Parts: sequence; C-alpha cells; structure tokens
Amino acid sequence: MGAFLDSLRDRVPSDRIVTDPDVIAAYAHDQAQWAPHGSPAALVRAGSVKDVQGVVAVCAEHGVPIVPRRAGTGLSGGANALDGCVLLSLEAMDAIVEIDPAERLAVVQPGVVNDALRLACAEHGLWYPPDPASAPWSTIGGNVATNAGGLCCVKYGVTRDYVLAVEAVVGRGEVVRLGRRTAKGVTGYDLCGLLVGSEGTLGVITEITVRLRGARPPERTIVGYFDDLRSAGEAVAAVTAAGIVPSALELIDRHCLRAVDAWRNMGLSADADVLLLGRTDLPGEAGEAEADAMVRLFAESGATWSARSEDEAEAEALFAARRLAYPALERLGPVLTEDVCVPRGLVPEMLSRIEATAAECGTHIANIAHAGDGNLHPLIITPAGDDAARERAQKAFDRIVADAIALGGTVTGEHGVGLLKRRGLHDELDPAVIDLHHAVKAALDPAGIFNPGKIFGTPD
Amino acid sequence: MGAFLDSLRDRVPSDRIVTDPDVIAAYAHDQAQWAPHGSPAALVRAGSVKDVQGVVAVCAEHGVPIVPRRAGTGLSGGANALDGCVLLSLEAMDAIVEIDPAERLAVVQPGVVNDALRLACAEHGLWYPPDPASAPWSTIGGNVATNAGGLCCVKYGVTRDYVLAVEAVVGRGEVVRLGRRTAKGVTGYDLCGLLVGSEGTLGVITEITVRLRGARPPERTIVGYFDDLRSAGEAVAAVTAAGIVPSALELIDRHCLRAVDAWRNMGLSADADVLLLGRTDLPGEAGEAEADAMVRLFAESGATWSARSEDEAEAEALFAARRLAYPALERLGPVLTEDVCVPRGLVPEMLSRIEATAAECGTHIANIAHAGDGNLHPLIITPAGDDAARERAQKAFDRIVADAIALGGTVTGEHGVGLLKRRGLHDELDPAVIDLHHAVKAALDPAGIFNPGKIFGTPD
Repeated sequence: MGAFLDSLRDRVPSDRIVTDPDVIAAYAHDQAQWAPHGSPAALVRAGSVKDVQGVVAVCAEHGVPIVPRRAGTGLSGGANALDGCVLLSLEAMDAIVEIDPAERLAVVQPGVVNDALRLACAEHGLWYPPDPASAPWSTIGGNVATNAGGLCCVKYGVTRDYVLAVEAVVGRGEVVRLGRRTAKGVTGYDLCGLLVGSEGTLGVITEITVRLRGARPPERTIVGYFDDLRSAGEAVAAVTAAGIVPSALELIDRHCLRAVDAWRNMGLSADADVLLLGRTDLPGEAGEAEADAMVRLFAESGATWSARSEDEAEAEALFAARRLAYPALERLGPVLTEDVCVPRGLVPEMLSRIEATAAECGTHIANIAHAGDGNLHPLIITPAGDDAARERAQKAFDRIVADAIALGGTVTGEHGVGLLKRRGLHDELDPAVIDLHHAVKAALDPAGIFNPGKIFGTPD
Repeated sequence: MGAFLDSLRDRVPSDRIVTDPDVIAAYAHDQAQWAPHGSPAALVRAGSVKDVQGVVAVCAEHGVPIVPRRAGTGLSGGANALDGCVLLSLEAMDAIVEIDPAERLAVVQPGVVNDALRLACAEHGLWYPPDPASAPWSTIGGNVATNAGGLCCVKYGVTRDYVLAVEAVVGRGEVVRLGRRTAKGVTGYDLCGLLVGSEGTLGVITEITVRLRGARPPERTIVGYFDDLRSAGEAVAAVTAAGIVPSALELIDRHCLRAVDAWRNMGLSADADVLLLGRTDLPGEAGEAEADAMVRLFAESGATWSARSEDEAEAEALFAARRLAYPALERLGPVLTEDVCVPRGLVPEMLSRIEATAAECGTHIANIAHAGDGNLHPLIITPAGDDAARERAQKAFDRIVADAIALGGTVTGEHGVGLLKRRGLHDELDPAVIDLHHAVKAALDPAGIFNPGKIFGTPD
C-alpha cells in the first residue's frame, strides 16, 4: 500500500489525497443505510481530468479498485467503499463549462448539482428536465451514473434521454469522448448511452454534454385524496389508459406527509391516507381539458375528494413534501428503500401487494411513488437496533422485489442496482444476459478496477 | 462449404435455405449503390427465432459470417453480402405480435414494415413516430439496426428513443431478452440501447418492443422559397435560435422536385431553387403563433416567398416529394448519398460549403435535408459508366465529410456507417474510441460471425 500511495502522489497533487481515516469515513458510503461498505485506502478529491487520469493509471498498475462518487445521495450503495479502494470524489469538478442556447445544450463537470444546472439554464430560458427528488443535493455526475429519473420523467424522460456526450477516463487511463454535440448521430456504437447508468463500473465520467429543452411551461396541479393505496393506483391506471401523459403524477401517503410535517412544520394537512398529485403543462384549452379529465378520473377511481388546486403555494408545498419524504423518514430510523417499476396498468395490483406484504411481514411501509411511471418507492422503516424488525423488513423487501418481477416489472426504476438490488438483478435477468454484462465489463475494464462487484457482482 | 450446408440443413428447414445464385443475387446488397458486395454462400429466409438460432449456431461452429437483412433499403451498405456469408433475411418474420394501448407499447417482429406498424397503431389511436423517408418499404428491424431517423425526429426523437426491449440471438446461438416493458428501468447496462444502431454486428434481433405515443396531433404547414441553400440554412438556424421545435423542418431543392415530378408527374411547381417545409403540431393558439413565427423567420432570413400552406393537398404533395426524392434521383444514375449532421447553427455554413464543393469538384449535387436536425443529405449524382465523374464524386464526398467533421458534426446522422461511411468513422473517432468498439465487438461476438468488418472495420 505504501508503494501504491507513493505512485499516487507522483501523479496527483498531494493536497488532493486524503488518508486520514476520520475524514475518509464520511465519504465511505452513500445514503443506502442498509448497504455494507468497506474501508478505503485513500480519498482523492479530483480537481481535473488529469487528476482522474493519474488515479486510474496508478490504480490499474497496482490493481487497486476505484469507487467514484459525487454527492453520495445514492440509494443503492453504488458509491459505497470497497476495502482498500480509492474513493475518487468528483465533487470539486463542479464547473458549468458552457450553456449554448442556440444548440440547446450544456457542458458540465460531474460535480455540478442538479438544481444548480437547472437554475443556470433557466437564466437562458432553457430547461434541463431530469429532476430526481434529490435535485437540491445530487450531482449531474451521480445522476448520469445511475441514469436518474425524477418527477417530470413521466412526460419528459430520464437522464439518459438528455445525455448527448461524455468525456470519460477508461481502461488504464485513456481519456475518451463518446457521443456527439449534434441533434442526431449514429457513427459507431452508443457507448455514451452504455456508460450512462453503469454506476462507475466502466470508467470515470469527467464531463457531460446534455441536451436542453425550452423553458418549462406553466403547470396546473390536480390533487386527489384516497382512502387506500389500491384506489389511488386505479386512478393512475385510469389516467394512463385515457391516453393522458401528465407532466407529473406522484403518490404520497399519510406516513410521509406526517414525517415531513414533523420535520419541517409545513402545516400540511393529511386528511387522507393517500394523495395523488397530478400536473399538466399543456397550453391553453388543451391544458384545461387535461386537468379536468384528471379530476374526473381521480373521482371515478374512488377518490374521496379531487380538484384542481387553486392555491399555487399549497400545490408547491405538497410537491416539496413529496421531495422531502425520503430524508424526513430517514430521521425516524434506517430506511430500506425499494425502487420497483411495474407496467402502469398493474400499479393498483402492485400497491395492493405492498399493503398485504406490510401486514403479513409485520413491518411498517411508507409509500411515495412516481406513480405515472409505475415506479414505486415503498420505504420500509425499522426502529434502530431492532434485529427482529430488521429481519422482517428484509423479508418484506424480498417479497416486494419478487412481486414486481412476477408482474413483469423491474427491480430498479431509477436508483440503480449498486449493492442493495444485486440479488434482485440476478432474479430479474437471465444468466445469459448476466454473462453479457460480464463480457462487456471485462472488455472495457481489463484491469478490473472500476467499482468492481457493483451491479451484477455475486450478491452476499 | 458442403459440410457447412449439411449442418445448416440439420438445423433449419430446407425450404428456408436458398443456394440458387440467381435468387441470392437480388439479396446481395442494399440501396447504397456505391458500396461493394461479395458473393454469399446461402440465403436463409428465417421464419422463427428457432431458425435464427440454428443459423447462428451453425455459423459460429463453422466460422461463417452472417449478414442480417430485412428490406434492403439501407443507404450505407450495412446489409451488403460478404464473400461466403449467410445472408439471413428476416423479411418473413413480419408479425405485429401485440399492441397494448394501456401500456402504450407494441411488440413486433423485425420484418414488419415501418408504415404497417404506424397504420396498425393508428387503429388504436396510437402513434409510432420514427418515420424515415423509406417508411413505406423499410422495416422496423432495419430501422433498429441503423437507429433510423426521419422527418418528425426533430421534435420526437429517433428509433432508439422508442425501443424499450429487444429479443436477440447472440454469441453462439443464445437467445436473450434485453430491456424492459416498463416505462423506466435501470437493472444492468443498457445493452438494448447498445444493440440499437449496431448494424447487425452484435447479434440478430428477432423481436422488438417499442414505446408508442398518443395519436399524432394535426399539423400546420409552412412553406418557404429561397434563392440559394445558404439563405434556407439561415432560416433553419433562425428557427432553432428562436427556441422553436417544429414537428418537421425539411429542405428540398429544385433538382429533387424536378426529379420527382419527372417520375411521378405530381404537378409540383419549382418556382424556387430551395424549399423549406416547416410543420408545427402545437394545439390551438400556440400552434398559430408558432406557424406565424416560422413564416416571419423564413422571410427575415431571405425567403423570396413564405406563407402557411392553406392547401392541405399541396402540402402533402410537397412532403411526398421530399420522401420520394431519393428513389427519384436514383433513376438518373448511381447516387452517392451523404448523411452528415452538423450543429444546427452551422447549417448555413455547411450548406455553403456543399455548394462550393459541387462547383470546385465539377459534380452535380442535389440536396434534401432534415434541416431542423442539422442532418443533411447532399446526393451526388453521376452519369452511369462515367469514371471521371465517379472520381470527382468521390472527391466531393470526402470533402463534405471532412467539412462536417471540421464543423463539429458527424459523418452519419441516421443512415448508419455500413461500408460507405467507414473511412469517415475513422476520421471522426479517436483511435482510443475505435479500440473500445473492437473490445465490445470481441466481447459480444466471440466467434466473429456477426456482419464482420462493417462499421469500424478497416476501410478499403
């Protein structure tokens, strides 16, 4: 290890290398509280692509694993340290290199915070849509690594849909540019798209070119109150079946509302067990019609109350509560986070099964969901230090994953596999498909240094 | 070869195997008239995934290359036969397996013609957007192999944006399903997206699940007449810079209009050297405003005439002429097709350079373009059998490719690399990126049988 650190210091400025275990400890895991993590050998706070190149070259030479990380807001353990690894933090590479209004694109370093990019684009009348609930803290680099989704994705797509090009350090330290700046392009394989969502296992992304849209149109908000998860799910399926593509369709239950209110004292009412929050951004009459249709479909699906929100501040508070639900629940105890995604028509069935699982396993499950996508986040909450509760939670987790797969769904809609969903990945994918993953990984990471074991490694 | 054909007959029904050279000859190349092709050993008209599996297994065992093909409408030679190869035709696998209106997806076999899918979707009030000009003949399988674009892609994206999942036969005959049926999903690498646009070099796609949209909204058409390419290009750049995303923005010049009219006698007027055809599909007042803005921007950019088309039949005829331009020009002699794509703001500069290249090389270049995408199709026409003209054409081709790369563009926006654009690919991509291509290819095609030499193989 001494020889390794000496080589590292030859390539990377010393003030960027941290070996103090107390400092490193804060970087050793992301927000997946249930995922294990090891003890890193060093933390490198890269300041440039040259620093990253140095780390990769030295790690390749010495066979030391690299775990890239940005803000550490991941929910699957993808950025968790491996024993003896270099934690390669890209937080300091946080420049917005360029915003080009004519070509509608932006070039950013990986450490740029999602909301910071959105704000900078807004100054040019432009919009970067992908909006994970973690947008105030998570970075574009992390969003790209996990192919993050968010609230507006039901209409506007996920991170991969916006990544035009990346610069990455791959192999043994080669810097490559993948993708393009043009609107279209098919020169060679879509290696840029392959890197998106690869959770740091194929290289370290050092720059990202994203596509932008015109300024976000104003939205109308529709609120529905429901007595149970299933009827809220029926409303989601009804909206989809009616051919409506809302600009958001979010579910949040009473547990989450209360947790947020207890934390932030937002004066949220929780007059229902489950809330659906719909939005439409169609202009003029089309928007009026879509909003009216959602109010009606909510009611027909069993809402005890549904209406267009006439109070913009109230609507904003409800969406803010949706975004804060996860950190609010974390305050109550370790949260085991699901991220299953099912066909939209099966949302009611999946929500019913989640309720049944909570009852059968004797565990507490709060629910938020990008319901319009079929992407559900049952959040399993256990009192800290209660081993029996922990076992029941794990049982519920496994059952929800199995149900999602049985319904033709997927284990992870937007959080990534990391460590937590590895077992689910092995349940979901055929062995022949996992073999293809190993082949691609071996081909692009011949030294085996990039976040090894994550995604499709053998689960514990 | 005898042993190989015997093995093939053991695995694939004899009536699906063709060895008659006269029959095979018609399948030996696509529509890239300048690309070379070899002599295939056999043609297999697969009727099922089992047939495809048989072909792949036997070819892997005997080291025989497979060139997959569907309708043969490709414009880069991607489906051209290699010496001694099996031409694996998937035309007979032309079933629309499923259209699911609730989930807004369709499952099709690769031989389904693009327009046939669009028609079938329309019966459910749904829309499959990608619309290459070849849509009446080209197949979804071929569209997926090349990641085809089309007219509406300026607003609605390309084929890859619509492919949710594929079934493919890979390796030595393994059948794998890649991708998902859900709206979102990040379980593992995006191997589905990797196969899209891989031109048959990573496996044979046997089924495709595509995302659909709601019924296409009605459109307004805007027509602009221009005296030269550059001013039409200025109008394109002005539309983009104004933040307008038209549902189509096509360029067609007088040569193409005349060629179509001479062929189909459509009574097209050609009162200008260059036409721009814009469309907007925004509803209500927003659509009115966008149409008016395009009329104004065309005029301000130097149009000699610009107006909204009040005659739907005339507008349709102009778009039909755009779609028929390529086959119409083909009647006049071998066409060497460009497919460069440049940043939208540089469309005027690129069009100027194309005009200059035509003059300097003494060659005849007609122009059509998905101008709103920056995707230009200069079509270099030579009299059959005129070797000197052929040399001048090749020189012009190379100069246009070099200009596109110099302007930050790409060699191929939507046609694929095939054989014709291989030299351009090597000019465009860094050697380190080409190395990654070879590594991926070797990893996923260990037997080296899938369309070897296409895309990034050493150009002649």
